[in-house]
Amino acid sequence: MLEDTPTPFPQHILLTPGPTPIHPRAQRALLREMLGHMDPEVFALNREIQADLREMYGTAPETFTALLAGTGSLGMEAGFANLVEPGDEVLVCVNGSFGARMAEMAARYGARVRQVTAPLGEAINPADVAAQLGRASLVAVVHGETSTGVLNPLPEIADVVRQSGALLTVDAVTTAGMEPFQMQAWGIDYVYTGAQKCLSAPPGLAPVAISDRALARHAARRTPTPLWYCDFGGLRDYWVDQSYHHTVPVNLHYAFHAALRAALEEGLSARQARVQNVSQAILAALAPLGFTPYVTDRAARLPTVLALRLPAGFDDAAIRGALRAREISVTGGLGPTAGLIWRLGLMGEAARPAPYRALMTALEDLLGERGLVSRFDEALNAVPA
Amino acid sequence: MLEDTPTPFPQHILLTPGPTPIHPRAQRALLREMLGHMDPEVFALNREIQADLREMYGTAPETFTALLAGTGSLGMEAGFANLVEPGDEVLVCVNGSFGARMAEMAARYGARVRQVTAPLGEAINPADVAAQLGRASLVAVVHGETSTGVLNPLPEIADVVRQSGALLTVDAVTTAGMEPFQMQAWGIDYVYTGAQKCLSAPPGLAPVAISDRALARHAARRTPTPLWYCDFGGLRDYWVDQSYHHTVPVNLHYAFHAALRAALEEGLSARQARVQNVSQAILAALAPLGFTPYVTDRAARLPTVLALRLPAGFDDAAIRGALRAREISVTGGLGPTAGLIWRLGLMGEAARPAPYRALMTALEDLLGERGLVSRFDEALNAVPA
Repeated sequence: MLEDTPTPFPQHILLTPGPTPIHPRAQRALLREMLGHMDPEVFALNREIQADLREMYGTAPETFTALLAGTGSLGMEAGFANLVEPGDEVLVCVNGSFGARMAEMAARYGARVRQVTAPLGEAINPADVAAQLGRASLVAVVHGETSTGVLNPLPEIADVVRQSGALLTVDAVTTAGMEPFQMQAWGIDYVYTGAQKCLSAPPGLAPVAISDRALARHAARRTPTPLWYCDFGGLRDYWVDQSYHHTVPVNLHYAFHAALRAALEEGLSARQARVQNVSQAILAALAPLGFTPYVTDRAARLPTVLALRLPAGFDDAAIRGALRAREISVTGGLGPTAGLIWRLGLMGEAARPAPYRALMTALEDLLGERGLVSRFDEALNAVPA
Repeated sequence: MLEDTPTPFPQHILLTPGPTPIHPRAQRALLREMLGHMDPEVFALNREIQADLREMYGTAPETFTALLAGTGSLGMEAGFANLVEPGDEVLVCVNGSFGARMAEMAARYGARVRQVTAPLGEAINPADVAAQLGRASLVAVVHGETSTGVLNPLPEIADVVRQSGALLTVDAVTTAGMEPFQMQAWGIDYVYTGAQKCLSAPPGLAPVAISDRALARHAARRTPTPLWYCDFGGLRDYWVDQSYHHTVPVNLHYAFHAALRAALEEGLSARQARVQNVSQAILAALAPLGFTPYVTDRAARLPTVLALRLPAGFDDAAIRGALRAREISVTGGLGPTAGLIWRLGLMGEAARPAPYRALMTALEDLLGERGLVSRFDEALNAVPA
């Protein structure tokens, strides 16, 4: 059976697609004494974070990495703000809310946006990307769509984009740090995630990696990046040249450093196994009640956000409300899938048996159904540790 | 004598113009259990924060307030991103680095920027603002210039701007929460600060207040706000309508709430007295060594950032390095004043006798000068508590 969370699970049980429960080492690191953003100890810590981020994103030792002082959406925004100029053609893959958000942001920075779409619950087809590339100077895709639990075929999409010469920006919010991610081998130019997702650090930071090609595109801009706060040049002033740009949130850096180090020590394959095992146990427990995977194509299922279609007649709002009263947070659908699905978070510290056993216990009671906990535990035990 | 910091001072002593030492109540609040950004408890906390911010900024009960998920510079940026459209005339008051940053940001969002300037170390003259208003649709001013320790005459400048019908955006980074600030009475349309300044909360949040006139200007834009992350509409989606916009940093909200509540409980006049008393004691201790106020006009001295001209022959870098080795951080000049001045932070928990007594003790030793600590303590005791 899987090893459980290293310290007693905190009182409130977060099973959402983010934020995730904070890793105990990150929690403790929040209490480190406050230092200034220009302190030599902080710069030393930042260098370790930058090196660890290269490992997490699977990229070269010279690739520029940094933390943006904001959440994942700011990571998304910084890519378009720096890499789009008015009139540029941008192709955005849209099969959920976060793809749609990308399209909106690109347009706000003046891009002529075209979309490659797929129905909700289905993955983007790389052949569709190839067919619509046209003269796009930038292609944007969400690796794992948090809103539907779909994993897009990023390596295949990246392959298509690379051949066209366009830059590729990737939302790795639900994947990096928990699922395979190879920035260098796949040919990604800009990637971001949120600290509070697969790494179980507190929210408020967006770790990014930027390719040399993307930095060159930025350096060749005809117009300045509108977003001063995340201008690639300003980021490099602080993260490479150690000169002042803005006040970074040092306490969050401490916590992020601790969480990322813990993830790398655990190892990517162990983390993937954790997700798979807990996910299979949840399915084994809930399937007899009529829960079915929302994403029907197995290959398109995002391991870290398990989207489950609710059984007929299931009172979504009432049950989630009753769970919340028992200090368990579960998330429903977003937009068109509201009331139709649950999205169970299996990122970072959420992908542990203990919190999901608590969910099964509560559901047994609320639904008057026996056997959920035992089915859950049997499925966990059936998996080789 | 002034009451000292409520708990033992942390090991490292931060006397910089930000970040400031974290308030013990904020530090403890960081450890509250993690909840989701859409949790009812978080929305309840947010409403309290919004009400307390109205009190801090001195504005009406219906004024929109919020926390931006980024540092003070993002607060600056959000004002221009939402209130400027390409071609707009913007008048920026520039008498230091942060005024200059405002001018740069406004230009990046397409404004035709004109500047009212004053020499470094001197305040902006309201008559100069009046003379140069022209057809400006927005005027921007830094209340307290962190880079030079100058307090600009904001009420007088606001009076001039209000008569013209232009909007007024104000950087209150070194003032709000510690110095008098009356958004409503003065007629401010957009104001921001950083959590880590006068409130001694951890960095990573920018509290803002936005007037109805500013919201109306935003609603009437011909073009969408480029900065999706801080779009006034998106902020209201989350902070008023409780619908999802982006993942806010909940742990920082906890800490901010605690720090702001502590500040309001202490009371603004008590906080102003703290700053004045510690500041006078520092001057009494250091003046015999040849330190003199950088800002010669008393009325233009920013109480919360004490800018001191260094004595002739004073080895700035060596002394600050030696202080850092003793776990005391002191900040020098920025840009043109580097090597010429120190900027001592008297914001939030830095404005206490204990940390500055530690500085005096270290300087006695490093400079081989007797009497600093006793002069410091005598000056503190001379002040009625």
